[in-house]
Amino acid sequence: MTKKIITISRAFGSGGRSIGKAVAQRLGIPFYDKELVEAVAKESGFHADFIEEAGEYAPVNSSFLFSIAVSPNPMSMMHTMSMADQLFVYQTNVIRSLADKGPCVIVGRCADYILREREDALHVFIHADMAHRAERIVRLYGETKQTPEKRLNDKDSKRKIYYKHYTNRNWGEAQNYHLCLNSGLIGVEKCVDIIVDVAKMYE
Amino acid sequence: MTKKIITISRAFGSGGRSIGKAVAQRLGIPFYDKELVEAVAKESGFHADFIEEAGEYAPVNSSFLFSIAVSPNPMSMMHTMSMADQLFVYQTNVIRSLADKGPCVIVGRCADYILREREDALHVFIHADMAHRAERIVRLYGETKQTPEKRLNDKDSKRKIYYKHYTNRNWGEAQNYHLCLNSGLIGVEKCVDIIVDVAKMYE
Repeated sequence: MTKKIITISRAFGSGGRSIGKAVAQRLGIPFYDKELVEAVAKESGFHADFIEEAGEYAPVNSSFLFSIAVSPNPMSMMHTMSMADQLFVYQTNVIRSLADKGPCVIVGRCADYILREREDALHVFIHADMAHRAERIVRLYGETKQTPEKRLNDKDSKRKIYYKHYTNRNWGEAQNYHLCLNSGLIGVEKCVDIIVDVAKMYE
Repeated sequence: MTKKIITISRAFGSGGRSIGKAVAQRLGIPFYDKELVEAVAKESGFHADFIEEAGEYAPVNSSFLFSIAVSPNPMSMMHTMSMADQLFVYQTNVIRSLADKGPCVIVGRCADYILREREDALHVFIHADMAHRAERIVRLYGETKQTPEKRLNDKDSKRKIYYKHYTNRNWGEAQNYHLCLNSGLIGVEKCVDIIVDVAKMYE
């Protein structure tokens, strides 16, 4: 079974996005990030900025999985859902149709869970220790009033809650991925090599 | 920083032990498994069979980390501990002294946690999906009255409880390891290649 679809889940500041982009370039396949946001914006009517932020960090209520589980057609109950839940349904549809289009790399947005049944998907999780991530976000995004450690802990905890809410899985659990890499130790370049190497095993 | 010590944590039936052994052979460094059990037996006086089983799966009480946390010298309170807790203290001492001796591969027994402060340690977690593990344990250990799935679930849940008790960490959380590999998808050979490759980056 060829691994055509690569999902990259990542801890904020771990370089997962850059790694995903480099993997897509090396494999000569599309990298969906901005394009995904635009597609969701087009389908949902939500503003790109809202999708960017709420697409992985939205505050959540506790009824989503139940409401989906009991509904034969989630789209039919959009009017009863919170904006965050509606956004998740739109994202799910967009991610599934992008994967159906052909080989690609998709970063974040629970794509690992949404595409968990696809045998042609390779699921990767990128993380790094606090020191590496703190140095990286300050270098890339600059200083803020908050310490980088506080910013990272806030992002991590929001993402954990969001992921648990929409997938009922624990974020960062190794068993949910084929490959988990500490980019702080292994380095971005080597992470790209390993992912491309494993993806190519299935050609 | 050279990565001299490699710890391999693994889900039962994932081939982690075989992978660890092959990595040690490829790197020409000792592989501690039986030797570790023998060293613990020698230091503790416990029987090897008890160490083999209880060393990763022992039923546990809920006071270990607290009792260690409040004690300047855990060895001094051995007489107040359960056999499982005593065994963990002996294992901890043996694993630390094996790591001090020089480069090696150590499989299981919370070595990833025990050696977490060592900058020269590479921590690896090996897992695989249920189907691959079930096929493997039946092939290696034969059939039993219990289904392989039941045997795997029992082992997993015991190991989770044991690991949480002695480390206060969640077993299989990617952030606790430098590399997590699904041996069912990647294959034992390729897992060995990746681990050796990453370990050699630091030579």
